[in-house]
Amino acid sequence: MTEIVPVILCGGSGTRLWPRSRVAKPKPFLPLVGDKTLFEATVARCPPQAGFAAPVVVTGSQHLAHVEAQLGEASGASIIVEPAAKNTAAAIALAAMRLPADAVMLACPSDHHIGDAAAFVAAAKAAAALAREGWLVSFGIEARSPETGFGYLRRGEAVGELGFRTAQFVEKPDLGRAQSFVADGGYAWNGGIFAFRVEDFLRELAVHRPAIAASVAEAVDKGREDGRRFHPDPRAFAGIDGESVDYAVMENTSRAAMVPADMDWSDIGNWQALHAARPRDAQGNSVAGQAELVDCRNVLVDSDGPRVSVIGLSDVIVVVDGDEVLVTSADGVQKVGKLSGAANQ
Amino acid sequence: MTEIVPVILCGGSGTRLWPRSRVAKPKPFLPLVGDKTLFEATVARCPPQAGFAAPVVVTGSQHLAHVEAQLGEASGASIIVEPAAKNTAAAIALAAMRLPADAVMLACPSDHHIGDAAAFVAAAKAAAALAREGWLVSFGIEARSPETGFGYLRRGEAVGELGFRTAQFVEKPDLGRAQSFVADGGYAWNGGIFAFRVEDFLRELAVHRPAIAASVAEAVDKGREDGRRFHPDPRAFAGIDGESVDYAVMENTSRAAMVPADMDWSDIGNWQALHAARPRDAQGNSVAGQAELVDCRNVLVDSDGPRVSVIGLSDVIVVVDGDEVLVTSADGVQKVGKLSGAANQ
Repeated sequence: MTEIVPVILCGGSGTRLWPRSRVAKPKPFLPLVGDKTLFEATVARCPPQAGFAAPVVVTGSQHLAHVEAQLGEASGASIIVEPAAKNTAAAIALAAMRLPADAVMLACPSDHHIGDAAAFVAAAKAAAALAREGWLVSFGIEARSPETGFGYLRRGEAVGELGFRTAQFVEKPDLGRAQSFVADGGYAWNGGIFAFRVEDFLRELAVHRPAIAASVAEAVDKGREDGRRFHPDPRAFAGIDGESVDYAVMENTSRAAMVPADMDWSDIGNWQALHAARPRDAQGNSVAGQAELVDCRNVLVDSDGPRVSVIGLSDVIVVVDGDEVLVTSADGVQKVGKLSGAANQ
Repeated sequence: MTEIVPVILCGGSGTRLWPRSRVAKPKPFLPLVGDKTLFEATVARCPPQAGFAAPVVVTGSQHLAHVEAQLGEASGASIIVEPAAKNTAAAIALAAMRLPADAVMLACPSDHHIGDAAAFVAAAKAAAALAREGWLVSFGIEARSPETGFGYLRRGEAVGELGFRTAQFVEKPDLGRAQSFVADGGYAWNGGIFAFRVEDFLRELAVHRPAIAASVAEAVDKGREDGRRFHPDPRAFAGIDGESVDYAVMENTSRAAMVPADMDWSDIGNWQALHAARPRDAQGNSVAGQAELVDCRNVLVDSDGPRVSVIGLSDVIVVVDGDEVLVTSADGVQKVGKLSGAANQ
């Protein structure tokens, strides 16, 4: 087969975009950039005409209603309902064990923004080609600024014309190291998008994390079909130690590769990142909802109803969501998740 | 008679405290500082035990419901319902023509805050004593800072031990002049509070503004009693050219005097002034309603419902009122009245 199987991961519910994102309506299911929700856009980026198979969505029961409503009748799509959140290694393993051994899967988070869909497809095709040669492939996102919120991939020797060996997985750096990475040019952001052939992934998982591999295998064996939903066995799944696929597999395998991807990507990891991903006017202001801005620069307003009037402020974010109003400096966005409103949902 | 008759002026509806203050619920009738509304506090500052008679309230029909609800059953209080807003000279003249010629009236705006009620009473008594000697007396409020939003009174020669002649009425100055006034020490803010004997005021009004005096006299002659309300004749009142009492009378009379008043006064002329009048914590923050402030200094939050979370801001005001949210820098408060929400009510 030559198709790429999108494995769309809908896990977790962050607090960094509170109060717009809440436990009951988490980030993937909100139209944060443009008209589509991030989940809808993730599905739409992988269309059949670009060589993608129907998606496999891995999500928790708390998000199932959102997934089904937004997935619609997408032909052939299937949903794996995780009995518990056990991080990405187990989530991807669930999908792998439901697919043919020679299928090439592309694991994608559902809460990122990608502005350049054509560049995404090109990177996916390159990654899939390397995967068919037995590589476990990460997307290496062009590092356009010294971000300290992402892990980095250090580029190794070329692998044909499509990519490189991954020489090193680098944890989130401090600002000085991040600046040196950008200056160096040999580093890319680790965007959490992966391609591998099913059999290669499962072999490496079994070698490096045999306990996860065994528990997921049992959970799938004892699982229950329910139309297009599949429910892994909760008891078998419950014992898994949650680990990221980076930590469990990618950093351990000798077959790690990366493909360059320059596709206007953002993890929309906080309100400042969302501001950057949205259209802005000449003053850098961006408005969603009803607002009037006077003498403002680089102000983001996002209101679900009330009109927001802002005077004389720069680099400020104002969010109105029902019974919560957030007003923060651009630098303050890192503390949003620790507000009592966000932490005690 | 020795009582002082409070004449409480409830006119206009500013836009500078929008969106909390709106056309339908204007500033005097809101509890902006403490539990009482500004109007209630104005009435309460003039109690019988301090030598005040029952108040005469002058207001428009659009505010009548608020006045009656907040005045309650105050014994002896009466209400003059202006057929139209014609500024303070006519409003005060209406009250004067309903009072005995030898009564001493104290004309008070109903939308100011006075923190030191005892100092107010002392100044009122001094002003009334001068009024009984035939002076037309302004409160000269201790000028504690070089405000450019107020008119100033220049102190002339002493009039006994209680006050001074008013040597000059100074229009709102620019900052340089305001600073020189404060440095000079011989200037006071014109707080718009006045004391005079009825016959003196009406004589001076007839001399300097005979048309206003004649129209008000006709409106009162043809007016209609309705319980404790009095309705001046609308047709007679309609022709009046509205002027302030300062401009129509005080600046023209040769008997203008002033008494010093240092009474923690504020006209609460904008959100910054309201912030200054409210209790603040050690960081200068002041909260009304539900709020969480992180890394903030000199932030005012005033919410009628939603919780407001603020991170990393200084000298900012956040107001939530129903369908409107205002976020402004301290300097920006001067532009609140020009926001489309405030201007197009």
